[in-house]
Amino acid sequence: MREIILRALKGKTSPDINIDNLPGEGKLDVVCGCIANALHISHHMREDTVFYLILDGPPLPPKLVTFYGDKIKDLGFDERGIAKKLINALKKGSSLKLDEEVEAEPGINIAKKSFEKLFKEKAENRKIFYLHKKGKDIREVNFGSNPLFVLGDHTGVPKNTERFLERAGAEKIKLGPVMLFASQCITVLHNELDRRTFGK
Amino acid sequence: MREIILRALKGKTSPDINIDNLPGEGKLDVVCGCIANALHISHHMREDTVFYLILDGPPLPPKLVTFYGDKIKDLGFDERGIAKKLINALKKGSSLKLDEEVEAEPGINIAKKSFEKLFKEKAENRKIFYLHKKGKDIREVNFGSNPLFVLGDHTGVPKNTERFLERAGAEKIKLGPVMLFASQCITVLHNELDRRTFGK
Repeated sequence: MREIILRALKGKTSPDINIDNLPGEGKLDVVCGCIANALHISHHMREDTVFYLILDGPPLPPKLVTFYGDKIKDLGFDERGIAKKLINALKKGSSLKLDEEVEAEPGINIAKKSFEKLFKEKAENRKIFYLHKKGKDIREVNFGSNPLFVLGDHTGVPKNTERFLERAGAEKIKLGPVMLFASQCITVLHNELDRRTFGK
Repeated sequence: MREIILRALKGKTSPDINIDNLPGEGKLDVVCGCIANALHISHHMREDTVFYLILDGPPLPPKLVTFYGDKIKDLGFDERGIAKKLINALKKGSSLKLDEEVEAEPGINIAKKSFEKLFKEKAENRKIFYLHKKGKDIREVNFGSNPLFVLGDHTGVPKNTERFLERAGAEKIKLGPVMLFASQCITVLHNELDRRTFGK
């Protein structure tokens, strides 16, 4: 199982999202690209992947939207199609109390849950990794059998999240010499994991 | 210099594109994702990359739209923003005669030119590569100093294009064990080239 947490610091937390201007809505274009690349391969879904999206932007942070690759239906690859799924989830989750969670549709849950709370629930007894320009080269990393990855959005993993991850024993990894968009990072990450799982 | 040719067999060749339904317009969502990942890295453009988009879909094939990473301005990362650039180029190129080319805006040219003609112009004295599930592992390939890459869209490189590339001495390469979307392939390809160019 591969589990990825994306912390989108500015990702909007109410469903009144302008679908015609996703970059203006807390860079939701990149967030939607992350969801696409986390869950889609050509002709199939990545059934071995769970993607946790923490939205920490206005007006009602935090929100957690979870995408299960083995259960999700009709998830397009396009940003607009994915944004519609996100809006639907935010509608279903608009009146949740802290730590409450509901199914928005098959394979997509929404909760009112913070990054820190989610992390504590998921981090036990496994290796945790986050991206950092001073990290160990991904090609030399031992991932263990059940890795958890934490990504920041276009602003990177914020400093206080980094300190939190350091204290939790997370390892820094690096994908290459060039800083990429989060959605591109997920593709490179999956490629390395695919090689470990299925061979070259 | 990195040069990438994408042959989008169903990519629409007139500017009457429904920007609200890019998947329905010959999978232009994937095409726009290819353009984004070919030319963008975090906070910068890939100035060492030229991306050639051959549109072979209805109603007026072929069209070639060329994106120069070192000259292009204001190219968003989002599909919708990129689609607008594409529509503008198709408008500017609507009355071109065969093999005519014009600048649509800085860094974006449009021509009425076929894949075969473009390929012949670009292929001389360099290594050419295309993606194939039976190709050599990308991590073991010697790219030379000035590689040319040919990609197919969501339907892959078509059989007759493959025969054409074989005759031209192109080498088959493989990115990993899992078939990816073309836009994801470009990200993995760039990552390998970045490592060769700049180190780990």
